[in-house]
Amino acid sequence: MIHSLNTGGALAGGIALVLLVVWPGSGCTPPAPGEGFDPAAETRAVRDVLLRQVAAWNEGDVEGFMDGYARTDSLRFASGGSVRRGWQATLERYRAAYPGRDAMGTLSFDSLEVHVLSPRWATVFGRWHLRRSGGFEDAGGLFTLILEKRPEGWRVLYDHTSSGS
Amino acid sequence: MIHSLNTGGALAGGIALVLLVVWPGSGCTPPAPGEGFDPAAETRAVRDVLLRQVAAWNEGDVEGFMDGYARTDSLRFASGGSVRRGWQATLERYRAAYPGRDAMGTLSFDSLEVHVLSPRWATVFGRWHLRRSGGFEDAGGLFTLILEKRPEGWRVLYDHTSSGS
Repeated sequence: MIHSLNTGGALAGGIALVLLVVWPGSGCTPPAPGEGFDPAAETRAVRDVLLRQVAAWNEGDVEGFMDGYARTDSLRFASGGSVRRGWQATLERYRAAYPGRDAMGTLSFDSLEVHVLSPRWATVFGRWHLRRSGGFEDAGGLFTLILEKRPEGWRVLYDHTSSGS
Repeated sequence: MIHSLNTGGALAGGIALVLLVVWPGSGCTPPAPGEGFDPAAETRAVRDVLLRQVAAWNEGDVEGFMDGYARTDSLRFASGGSVRRGWQATLERYRAAYPGRDAMGTLSFDSLEVHVLSPRWATVFGRWHLRRSGGFEDAGGLFTLILEKRPEGWRVLYDHTSSGS
């Protein structure tokens, strides 16, 4: 957990979508099939949340993008050296940082890895890219997300995003 | 999961150690007390792994520091824009980036949040600081760790570290 001051080294780029289902063993009993837990289906559901976020972003719909996040004050959003807490503060941060379509640009993800850790928790690793015009530079980097299965579905509760290619 | 190009905003600094135990609900049955799962004890065990890492680092013991990571090729270490995979590659990255005591400096963590997600999985958020001399600049930033409970104990399997204060 110490960031090198001279990070070169292998990039995760170019990896296609990896769907790895991790089933917790000791002490965590998966529900019977009758209870309907299907790790592969949950993995697709997690990925679909992210794909809906990308689609909303690329329509300029920041609120739609934010629907992928848990609407709770427990939401934690870490980017660069700063941490925001709560869905509303995160929405406001996005609105302030991306005022308008040119600033928002076109979002894409790659190198996605979805790990369903349990019926309630999943983590996603990936790389984000923002292609922009109108005087805004392209941007990109890595993210680590922890999603919680909530009554409304899988939602991002913890987000750590960094920039750098 | 998009990093603002002008991230200012609230820092998480100054938060004391937060020990929040999250118990997965739907479908995940905690073992009976007889099976010995104690979320508060697991939270302390997770925190102790990090404290041992700090102690090892500050003794110049990179191998001891690396003992906090899972000795597996599944280890994923993301920092800046790059991703390394595997315990050995992560050790070599640390050795290359921190050649000697002056480069290693003195490590400390704050704003630690430990969330035990299940008997097998936990996540830790925190802020790292490196105080250095001998011509090396101080450094610091945020980390997000996902630890797996393994036969040898809790170990970091996924690490996303970024710099910036």
